[in-house]
Amino acid sequence: MQKRLFAEFLGTFWLVFGGCGSAVLAAAFPDVGIGLLGVSLAFGLTVLTMAYAVGGISGGHFNPAVSVGLLTAGRFPAKDLIPYVIAQLVGAVVAAAVLYFIVSGKADFAGVGGFASNGYGEFSPGKFSLGAALVMEVVMTFIFLMIILGATTGRVPAGFAPIAIGLGLTLIHLVSIPVTNTSVNPARSTGVALFAETPALSQLWLFWVAPIVGAAIAGIVHKAVFGDD
Amino acid sequence: MQKRLFAEFLGTFWLVFGGCGSAVLAAAFPDVGIGLLGVSLAFGLTVLTMAYAVGGISGGHFNPAVSVGLLTAGRFPAKDLIPYVIAQLVGAVVAAAVLYFIVSGKADFAGVGGFASNGYGEFSPGKFSLGAALVMEVVMTFIFLMIILGATTGRVPAGFAPIAIGLGLTLIHLVSIPVTNTSVNPARSTGVALFAETPALSQLWLFWVAPIVGAAIAGIVHKAVFGDD
Amino acid sequence: MQKRLFAEFLGTFWLVFGGCGSAVLAAAFPDVGIGLLGVSLAFGLTVLTMAYAVGGISGGHFNPAVSVGLLTAGRFPAKDLIPYVIAQLVGAVVAAAVLYFIVSGKADFAGVGGFASNGYGEFSPGKFSLGAALVMEVVMTFIFLMIILGATTGRVPAGFAPIAIGLGLTLIHLVSIPVTNTSVNPARSTGVALFAETPALSQLWLFWVAPIVGAAIAGIVHKAVFGDD
Amino acid sequence: MQKRLFAEFLGTFWLVFGGCGSAVLAAAFPDVGIGLLGVSLAFGLTVLTMAYAVGGISGGHFNPAVSVGLLTAGRFPAKDLIPYVIAQLVGAVVAAAVLYFIVSGKADFAGVGGFASNGYGEFSPGKFSLGAALVMEVVMTFIFLMIILGATTGRVPAGFAPIAIGLGLTLIHLVSIPVTNTSVNPARSTGVALFAETPALSQLWLFWVAPIVGAAIAGIVHKAVFGDD
Repeated sequence: MQKRLFAEFLGTFWLVFGGCGSAVLAAAFPDVGIGLLGVSLAFGLTVLTMAYAVGGISGGHFNPAVSVGLLTAGRFPAKDLIPYVIAQLVGAVVAAAVLYFIVSGKADFAGVGGFASNGYGEFSPGKFSLGAALVMEVVMTFIFLMIILGATTGRVPAGFAPIAIGLGLTLIHLVSIPVTNTSVNPARSTGVALFAETPALSQLWLFWVAPIVGAAIAGIVHKAVFGDD
Repeated sequence: MQKRLFAEFLGTFWLVFGGCGSAVLAAAFPDVGIGLLGVSLAFGLTVLTMAYAVGGISGGHFNPAVSVGLLTAGRFPAKDLIPYVIAQLVGAVVAAAVLYFIVSGKADFAGVGGFASNGYGEFSPGKFSLGAALVMEVVMTFIFLMIILGATTGRVPAGFAPIAIGLGLTLIHLVSIPVTNTSVNPARSTGVALFAETPALSQLWLFWVAPIVGAAIAGIVHKAVFGDD
Repeated sequence: MQKRLFAEFLGTFWLVFGGCGSAVLAAAFPDVGIGLLGVSLAFGLTVLTMAYAVGGISGGHFNPAVSVGLLTAGRFPAKDLIPYVIAQLVGAVVAAAVLYFIVSGKADFAGVGGFASNGYGEFSPGKFSLGAALVMEVVMTFIFLMIILGATTGRVPAGFAPIAIGLGLTLIHLVSIPVTNTSVNPARSTGVALFAETPALSQLWLFWVAPIVGAAIAGIVHKAVFGDD
Repeated sequence: MQKRLFAEFLGTFWLVFGGCGSAVLAAAFPDVGIGLLGVSLAFGLTVLTMAYAVGGISGGHFNPAVSVGLLTAGRFPAKDLIPYVIAQLVGAVVAAAVLYFIVSGKADFAGVGGFASNGYGEFSPGKFSLGAALVMEVVMTFIFLMIILGATTGRVPAGFAPIAIGLGLTLIHLVSIPVTNTSVNPARSTGVALFAETPALSQLWLFWVAPIVGAAIAGIVHKAVFGDD
């Protein structure tokens, strides 16, 4: 169990440090910034790389919603849920702290602002309503879990799942950053919300509720329609 | 059959929601938009991810033209064509509806405009003629099917086909968005045309005819030249 | 042999139509253009996709320099060289012709200009000298062949070579488009030079000599150092 | 051993020529430049391609820090370290020299400036402090080695490691170019520092110390937590 929790800690650390780090440091770098496309790629590659590195140890969830979806699909034991979620949260918070330290080392540092946190309404990047944000996060996490559950069955030759899942997360970001800055992961949302200078914490509830609801439904639907092969 | 139709519904939903969603929401986001490159990547990744997730169930067509090309290549039974096309169309329309709901939740929402629909002449992104659009869509769907038919033979080790096919669709978009906004998929074109505020429906015929002609020819040529191994 | 030559024709058609097509149509599209990054990705994906589609039939050269490098490495029979090169040239010229037709269908069409042709000096995108262009093309084709020869040995599990080779071509473009517009492929250079409105034909010799020299050396070095396993 | 050292030379040559070459030549090309996203992709693809081409021969380190990390993980014999590091350094310096020749062939050449060298403080792209640079390089090389060590165990099916490792390096660049211009590789830093017109050499110590410390820790941690399976 020790090994597995360390793997979840490390993977979630990397997801937040790499994904949110690219957003905070490089997205809007003058003239040559990586933009939303680069940030989308970064988030996806955190999962792709860590799924290869430690996915064989812990299953490579790095995300409380993924753990819940695997649970409702009958592929993850309920007794492991709380330890996994705690390891994921610790990884996310440590990543946000290290990132905060680095960002504050910039010569003209003047605060971290939103710090890549998630939001709706006034705090949505494109000013999308609570309803739009809720539907987007539920649908995106639902699809994310359908990809995860489908790509890890015996139907897919071993070794390809991290590509499907990682690039699936890239795709989710390509679509939904303008709406909610893309969560689909309560740990990622929590890590950076703690350091944001905006009221991100007051909107954090949505980024626990929506991803978990979407993931839970996906687990149930996948099992019902396709079996849990 | 139930399972297979649900897989086609889900995959085509994701193709339209992810591909057209990225175009409508993120392509031209101020300063950090993903551009045509990001949209091209998004379309390709919808197919790559869903081919891994449910390709083993339904074959992963997500596109009436693909179903036709596989039929003329002798790899798909004629009796399944109509149910597949219906499942694909339903997926595309539901995706467009959910996307419409989200887009209309933007604070300064003022209509969806073209809504990522396909077009020629005045409604081609780069104002290309009907002739140019027709040739582009026929050629692109022909090549798309050659990739699909070739990558799913015994010549290619199991598991790599979704990479070849998904990134093939990305490449098709990298070239042809300026000409027709890229269809090669009548279901994708139909889904968003129903919601577009431009006369996209009046040009929809071309995005049924050209992809299906290109795909049908590819199926015949592939079988004649390379066999149907 | 028929099958193999059709495969080379098709692959080289796609390389020129997809790669040069993305450059001509989408690279500088207003506001959302794909830029040199998108063009680099497009060229690489033409090879990745066709190597999966028909690589098992012809070996997937799509490039006279590759055929020469495989020959000097002892992996391709000399008697097949001329037919292969002819099939490649025909594919490249047909692709350029179809692309010309499509481009000329633009409402404000005013000529194709350089038409994605290769050049040095005044016709180098970044105005690089003949010497710089020569070194770049020799080095890049040398490395391209080292990747091809290495990735197709028994050291690499079956199925991964198209990824290494295709993304290798993407990388070559990411570096060298500013210098020569990137050839490393005499067929690609010839196809578009025939339609260019610039004196691309007068510089075409370099894009036969340099790639073939670089490839031939690579074949010899690879065989001498690593064996022809 | 000859073969292995040539492989390390070639791989490190390509890493510097391809990665730094893309930065110097193409990153800020007018209007269509590849930006930091293109440079990040280029660095990652140098490793992905060479790991497939020659990784089976030398292990595909291309980086003194990687050799050290594999050593502390118990996977690389101490007696090979110095020869490997020398081959890597020679490859990096030769690559920088060839790149210098090409860059100086530009019509309006006026010096190479920083020449893609690494730096902190005044010479950090985003003016980040020594402390921020140090933490970034240690953390990034630590994670890079965790990916390398994890992806090359028996847990991951053969053939996928180059994808995980190469795209891991892309991700590292997506985050950290603004801070240090991204090293995680003392050979890469040394090669270009010798030609830079800025005082990059005076800051070079950090790009030996931090990557090696991060890598050495990773080797120890990976072995302690996950075993050296």
